[in-house]
Amino acid sequence: MPGSLTDRLSAYAGVAAELGLDAVALVPGPNFTRAVEHVFMSHERPFVLVIPARGPAAALVPNLELRSWDLVGFEGAVFDWRDQDGYDAAFSALMAHLGIRSLGVEGQVMRVFVHHALIRAQPDLRIIDAEKQISGLRMIKAPAEIAALREAIGISERALARTLETVRAGQTEKEIEQVLIRSLFAEGAEDQSFAPIVAAGDGSARPHAKARAGYAIKAGDALLLDFGARKHGFAADITRTVFLGHATDEAQAVYDTVLRANLKGFEVTRAGVTAHEIDDAVTGVLEASPFADRIRTKTGHGLGRDVHEAPYIMRGNHQVLPAGTVYTNEPGLYQIDNFGVRIEDDVLITEGGCVSLTSFPKELTVLPC
Amino acid sequence: MPGSLTDRLSAYAGVAAELGLDAVALVPGPNFTRAVEHVFMSHERPFVLVIPARGPAAALVPNLELRSWDLVGFEGAVFDWRDQDGYDAAFSALMAHLGIRSLGVEGQVMRVFVHHALIRAQPDLRIIDAEKQISGLRMIKAPAEIAALREAIGISERALARTLETVRAGQTEKEIEQVLIRSLFAEGAEDQSFAPIVAAGDGSARPHAKARAGYAIKAGDALLLDFGARKHGFAADITRTVFLGHATDEAQAVYDTVLRANLKGFEVTRAGVTAHEIDDAVTGVLEASPFADRIRTKTGHGLGRDVHEAPYIMRGNHQVLPAGTVYTNEPGLYQIDNFGVRIEDDVLITEGGCVSLTSFPKELTVLPC
Repeated sequence: MPGSLTDRLSAYAGVAAELGLDAVALVPGPNFTRAVEHVFMSHERPFVLVIPARGPAAALVPNLELRSWDLVGFEGAVFDWRDQDGYDAAFSALMAHLGIRSLGVEGQVMRVFVHHALIRAQPDLRIIDAEKQISGLRMIKAPAEIAALREAIGISERALARTLETVRAGQTEKEIEQVLIRSLFAEGAEDQSFAPIVAAGDGSARPHAKARAGYAIKAGDALLLDFGARKHGFAADITRTVFLGHATDEAQAVYDTVLRANLKGFEVTRAGVTAHEIDDAVTGVLEASPFADRIRTKTGHGLGRDVHEAPYIMRGNHQVLPAGTVYTNEPGLYQIDNFGVRIEDDVLITEGGCVSLTSFPKELTVLPC
Repeated sequence: MPGSLTDRLSAYAGVAAELGLDAVALVPGPNFTRAVEHVFMSHERPFVLVIPARGPAAALVPNLELRSWDLVGFEGAVFDWRDQDGYDAAFSALMAHLGIRSLGVEGQVMRVFVHHALIRAQPDLRIIDAEKQISGLRMIKAPAEIAALREAIGISERALARTLETVRAGQTEKEIEQVLIRSLFAEGAEDQSFAPIVAAGDGSARPHAKARAGYAIKAGDALLLDFGARKHGFAADITRTVFLGHATDEAQAVYDTVLRANLKGFEVTRAGVTAHEIDDAVTGVLEASPFADRIRTKTGHGLGRDVHEAPYIMRGNHQVLPAGTVYTNEPGLYQIDNFGVRIEDDVLITEGGCVSLTSFPKELTVLPC
């Protein structure tokens, strides 16, 4: 996000004003990191930055974070609290200082213990879920943010290439997962975007499967890998499905359908398209196929500091997507007790069309076994 | 946690009954994982397991997780919802089915969007933060859980040894962090417990510092490494502080004080001690030293599936700690613009005393540079 801390906080003040709220609050997480350009953790300690529609911001900071908080260059009031004293007094002082009646919060990030502490401090405070508008400020990626995503994706694709070179029949899903994870870090990941999915055979039919230590892959299996590296705070998210030894006619037909749906997503994407229109086009391809009963998920989601963020690429979401938005194009078909196929690319929307940030091959791949 | 799914859910029903609540709710996170013995993620999709004080449990499950949910063997009612339909109808059906008036939730885990969805479905529902009691069921670790922690700690200690062998003056904090992370995965970590802290010189004085790409370590620096591997879902958490080239007299005196405080923690720990008593003894050593003004944190926290969990080892917490509890003993002294020292061990409480699960040497270590 460009500009000074003041500029960045002004954007959140704008969200409060736009929603007719007295203020918005950020807690440690992707919006907080973007606003203050430093990474803070919350764990069991409340840490809240309140940005009023008008007037200076104020923060409630765990005492042991004060020295790190100094690096932010924040000029508003700070209410700190120590573990041994608890945080209720600091919340009361913060709310008395602010004098607000309504507060927009990040519903997907703020936890109930902070919500309750706010209400204890000011029982008549109206707390509104402003997740969409607050996180919406992250939707258009700046060039430096796109560069970070490209770096994360490059690491992920090199790790995938290394991993697939080592895959052999008889390995367990868990063993392949371990190779993938090690490869991500060997290639320079600072973290994983999420716990990877490495699922073969019937496991690939569960969209969010976990790698099994007890399942050894065998000839004919689909092998689905969904994973990503994190770099400079930005998260890659990639899926490829390959086959071991051979792909049956059914597998080839399913794969071809998913690939056509994925390609359709690229075809319809340009600045000004709605999330609904993308999902409708992509899912439309799946629905028109003989495998319509294997549809289980929407097309995808926004990608950035969070691995799942706005915009959600689904029918009914008529949000217009501007240039600079990055989303995952990840159609899939899943048949229980049989197999699943998903192909996921990370897509940058541009004025005239779109660019795939992922470049790992998508042709049907059969690994030797 | 031993026993069948029914046994495990009964324990949560017991928490509801004990608190005089109609039910408790779990959302994906450490308690949920422990209860159903499968790992689920929530991201932007609500996923709630409600366990009444009396009668069968019920669950609200995202449709695309249904196939994974089948593996749990859950016999209660399931209310699923699809992305395109939203989740409000499923919440209404769940609450109508349950007919409850009060619900204990995990305040540190449940996010506001779920809280709001529950209230939309049933405006008169009383939601109570039962984090302490719900997570309290995780406090006493079963033998298999201790074995997982030992494995995570072993990986962490081997990674630390590998990393320290490569440390040289002129490296940046960030470079050392990258070696540490790669070493964790090379040693078999399935994840990191948290983003590691690698902080030298004045950076070591900030308890939650992040590794700087712009700070090269130099002779005389303190180098603090706080990190951990995750294995089988359990999180190690270890800190060691070493010195580069030489340690000044001041550094030696500070290190010696912190080490004595850490050893005092072991001395006073046995089943039946309170969290207050441990912190009082450990912090007492720091307070009695010439460096009392450098105290910034409590002694530590519980450790298990969560890297910060109950019990919190601090004055004022008069919780009695039973055998099987694992906590971090991590006294530290931090002087802004100068340096900090922290020594952190993971401690298992036993009937007669305690066992350090960490065994990495704690003698003052000066690395060549």
